Amino acid sequence: MQVIDQRRLPHRFVIEDLKTVNDVCTAIRDMHVRGAGLIGVTAAYGMYLAAREAAGQNDFDEFIRIAAGKISDTRPTAVNLAWAVEQMTNAMKKGRDTEEKTKIALQTANEILEHDIACCRKIGENGLKIIKKISLRKKRGVVNILTHCNAGWLAFGDYGTATAPIYEAFDKGIKLHVWVDETRPLNQGSRLTAWELREHGVPYSVIADNTGGYLMQTGQVDMVITGADRVTRTGDVANKIGTYLKALAAHDNNIPFYVALPSSTIDWKIRDGLSEIPVEKRGGEEVNYMEGLCDGEIKRILVSPAESNAVNYAFDITPAKFVTGFITERGICRANEKNLLELFPEFV
Amino acid sequence: MQVIDQRRLPHRFVIEDLKTVNDVCTAIRDMHVRGAGLIGVTAAYGMYLAAREAAGQNDFDEFIRIAAGKISDTRPTAVNLAWAVEQMTNAMKKGRDTEEKTKIALQTANEILEHDIACCRKIGENGLKIIKKISLRKKRGVVNILTHCNAGWLAFGDYGTATAPIYEAFDKGIKLHVWVDETRPLNQGSRLTAWELREHGVPYSVIADNTGGYLMQTGQVDMVITGADRVTRTGDVANKIGTYLKALAAHDNNIPFYVALPSSTIDWKIRDGLSEIPVEKRGGEEVNYMEGLCDGEIKRILVSPAESNAVNYAFDITPAKFVTGFITERGICRANEKNLLELFPEFV
Repeated sequence: MQVIDQRRLPHRFVIEDLKTVNDVCTAIRDMHVRGAGLIGVTAAYGMYLAAREAAGQNDFDEFIRIAAGKISDTRPTAVNLAWAVEQMTNAMKKGRDTEEKTKIALQTANEILEHDIACCRKIGENGLKIIKKISLRKKRGVVNILTHCNAGWLAFGDYGTATAPIYEAFDKGIKLHVWVDETRPLNQGSRLTAWELREHGVPYSVIADNTGGYLMQTGQVDMVITGADRVTRTGDVANKIGTYLKALAAHDNNIPFYVALPSSTIDWKIRDGLSEIPVEKRGGEEVNYMEGLCDGEIKRILVSPAESNAVNYAFDITPAKFVTGFITERGICRANEKNLLELFPEFV
Repeated sequence: MQVIDQRRLPHRFVIEDLKTVNDVCTAIRDMHVRGAGLIGVTAAYGMYLAAREAAGQNDFDEFIRIAAGKISDTRPTAVNLAWAVEQMTNAMKKGRDTEEKTKIALQTANEILEHDIACCRKIGENGLKIIKKISLRKKRGVVNILTHCNAGWLAFGDYGTATAPIYEAFDKGIKLHVWVDETRPLNQGSRLTAWELREHGVPYSVIADNTGGYLMQTGQVDMVITGADRVTRTGDVANKIGTYLKALAAHDNNIPFYVALPSSTIDWKIRDGLSEIPVEKRGGEEVNYMEGLCDGEIKRILVSPAESNAVNYAFDITPAKFVTGFITERGICRANEKNLLELFPEFV
């Protein structure tokens, strides 16, 4: 399986070959690949790689079971990862022998990828309606959209979630400008979203994560769209750390705050984001050091005083009351249990 | 006049000699010195340097007038700068000849520095009461204080404003831990506040600016203290970009949010922060590039894709309603006109 090593973007475009379950685990844990959708898809193909590796083992099923645990444990917050592994495990159980199980694994991983792409397309079409409305209200003036982190095509099989409506609207000729939160500490905004938008030709400006509040106070933001890593059935949203602060500012300034997500991101088993979603804590060195281009090479610099303690939570929880609505593959709904279940009645 | 070139901290400690008005203007504009108090004090000594330079000129008063304009124009938001220049200009008018005016200039600059130091001491003593209360409520457990940017001794003549109560409490043996917002784009938190606290021995953790909200959601912050660059007579606060987002999060989680300031930071002439305080916009390269230590040298790296547009507002406005109280040299008061005027009746 081939993936883009996203740690190297935007300055290097490196394709990495993942050959084993361990390769897959390293790639997810160390964030060569990241983003809820993409780690789901990568985990699915990781399970297919597990099946191929298991062929040479004594106990095929035991090897698969251990691989499933290893892959699920790489990152705790995004539910797509656990969801994809569960889909794969359940599907493979239907195979009668190792050969058939392996075949089913490849089929199912392909289906998960195709489903992910189809969801992103639909999210784009559904989100377009909101952007169109704002564009008309502004008499076709520039629509200013703020986004946090990267929920673009780099984070999914294709097209992205938060960026899907943006690409869709841009391709339809709607005038747009995107405020790109740099998204410290790993700069997924300034490195990845900025790179994606530039490749696509969408006008954007990079801003420090601190800046969005002032832009909203001064009328320079028309809407916010972010992705999500896990959403409870009541509508609480776990997403990249800092999302909650933007939601508060949007709320204080009456600016619509939308979360775009495929339904595989909804964890129907839980109700309370703060107490029930495990929030990943990563190493402090991600805060103290920063990587970038210097004299044509990628260099790593130390910003804080040497040996500073740093605390690095990767996500925060935006309570449902601060979310204007969800943009899903089945349509748009308000962030509460009743409206979510109207779109997804199979989970009532 | 000697200053610490704060652009080089924490990795280099460089003392810079400012000899002319132009040196002073460059040092303030390019942020070799920064922080409301310190740029006020630097501006005051800049006016004394102007008086010395003017001695060789045809028209002493005209030279002083032009120097006052140049110094005032270096940075627009912090009112201490304009305040100090005005104090200097008014004082110097009382001199009968150039010699006497120059002598008054030095005296007045010294007085402004001494006043700044005295205010910081008083702010420390007044703020200590709040920290003590929280410490007692927590049965002398660790008090977690979040701060944004640097309002420490580096930002003032001595001792700092936001950090003054922290140093005071730490020196009195109260158990403390400080969450240091890194404060993008210029990292005054991770570079300067972290360095100050480490030198003083106060326990701290550096965090991305995105993190404070989640820490508050999970009960890991007992209070927030920031400084201010300008405060209206109604209590709106201009401070480093991102302050507003922390105030919103503190408000949402019922956490006290205090602003520490000497009264020279209050602009008694204005009432509405958002429409009346000029917010400085700085170069986008401060967002796209970052400086730090690499292989023993200070290097500058590019983070965003080359030629990315970046927008860089240096301050935002925190409406008075989100401020629990002001810690001033005369005492603590709520953030409204009535309570401010009770402490400072001379401005009624």
